[in-house]
Amino acid sequence: MKFARYGEPGQERPGVLDAEGRLRDLSGVLPDLAGAVLGDLPRLNPESLPLVDGAPRLGPPVAQVGKLICIGLNYTDHAAELGVGPPADPVIFLKATSAINGPFDPVSLPRGAVRGDWEVELGVVIGRRAKYVSEARAPEHVAGYTIINDVSERGLQLERSGQWTKGKSCDSFAPMGPWLVTPDELDDVQALDMAVEVNGVRMQSGNTRRMIFSVAQIVAYLSELMTLEPGDVIATGTPPGVGMGHKPPRYLAEGDEMVLRISGLGEQRSPVVRDE
Amino acid sequence: MKFARYGEPGQERPGVLDAEGRLRDLSGVLPDLAGAVLGDLPRLNPESLPLVDGAPRLGPPVAQVGKLICIGLNYTDHAAELGVGPPADPVIFLKATSAINGPFDPVSLPRGAVRGDWEVELGVVIGRRAKYVSEARAPEHVAGYTIINDVSERGLQLERSGQWTKGKSCDSFAPMGPWLVTPDELDDVQALDMAVEVNGVRMQSGNTRRMIFSVAQIVAYLSELMTLEPGDVIATGTPPGVGMGHKPPRYLAEGDEMVLRISGLGEQRSPVVRDE
Repeated sequence: MKFARYGEPGQERPGVLDAEGRLRDLSGVLPDLAGAVLGDLPRLNPESLPLVDGAPRLGPPVAQVGKLICIGLNYTDHAAELGVGPPADPVIFLKATSAINGPFDPVSLPRGAVRGDWEVELGVVIGRRAKYVSEARAPEHVAGYTIINDVSERGLQLERSGQWTKGKSCDSFAPMGPWLVTPDELDDVQALDMAVEVNGVRMQSGNTRRMIFSVAQIVAYLSELMTLEPGDVIATGTPPGVGMGHKPPRYLAEGDEMVLRISGLGEQRSPVVRDE
Repeated sequence: MKFARYGEPGQERPGVLDAEGRLRDLSGVLPDLAGAVLGDLPRLNPESLPLVDGAPRLGPPVAQVGKLICIGLNYTDHAAELGVGPPADPVIFLKATSAINGPFDPVSLPRGAVRGDWEVELGVVIGRRAKYVSEARAPEHVAGYTIINDVSERGLQLERSGQWTKGKSCDSFAPMGPWLVTPDELDDVQALDMAVEVNGVRMQSGNTRRMIFSVAQIVAYLSELMTLEPGDVIATGTPPGVGMGHKPPRYLAEGDEMVLRISGLGEQRSPVVRDE
């Protein structure tokens, strides 16, 4: 199943795609795609649900995200691009949940920021509470997958006194969606093509098979550090081709449009603007 | 006013202290100490409210914390203790909100962790939305203050592949409370004594006047990076005397008890246990 949330920011309603890709209203079945609902998503015939009129905005496909955990340097070819070796343990940081954005909403650069950058990532949505789970049992705790753009401002991230947080947590820096795709829809989550285009030019290309730590390894590892709760989201790292890795570097400017794709997970399209 | 939340974890009710320091039930006045309520806390006569029976557990004094932002290396004397110069910009990292703990709850070390450490910090609770606010206007966005113990596992923080997050975000690593103290209760938030004792031995001593970046500067700075929302909490850094800074280092062990105090904000008391 492909679930989505539609409507104005903060007013989104849950929906589901039917066999023709049309959006159906799920609000008569469940209150929202959030919390414990994610651990027991309904299997239903979308054709039995009312069609959604028009083409409403899509919001992030998960509401009330408790924490947005990111894995850094998790692709062999991206680590090589940055001239660093693969890390011995997963590199972990958090993005502020206030950065979460809809998949077609503008990405807004902070005043004065000149090194905005894109990072297409496989997003893992936790469905069931996980603490000290094994790699083998980890998939039972996953509600589904989505696309996350781990937007970054490299000046803030790398040149303003340590820790990546401040270049990662600006408002709108975590477009998520368009859909929450349940695991049964994907043949192999570790064999998904990923791409970013900026203004129609291919910038990032990768495949989740190049992950250093797999989804199951990441969920197990994180669960040894902290409780993963329903509605937590993990961004699992990015393949090569970030703006910082281009020679010369290519950073985001107002008027750019980023398009992100992951096989089976759809497409995001984010115009770039700047805070007033 | 001094507000608190009492009851079993996840079931806390709002309360307020009366002139004798007795807890009064506030649940007839407001639903919880969370979100927009924090921007307009009631001024009332606690004596008009029902006394709370017995001595219930206190929870964290703020519910539904959206983000828990921490400032690193923010005391001149703590930076010196670690042998690093004062940072040019505030060092920012996030702690998982799932780490938030009550002020008298046990702090539980992860399996295998051997370098648990304490950090007493002044906690700032945001009451009103802040984006691009000036230092002069920043205090209008603060609901009040509390004590936060930024518990850290130094092995995970410093030796397991970059970024501090993983040593900072373990469950129970953010005891908060006992109270949310409104700003009018403090003569000068930049002149508060701070202390940690472990098993009755003084470990940390400091005063908020040694902050490199003041509360107002921190709120203004963060608001240029991301929207601060009601219920967000900022831990503003720690003074000297962390376990890592002692010679030889002194780390937490099962059976230890940490006592944290900040003038006007009360006292925390956390027994140390270990995950089973």
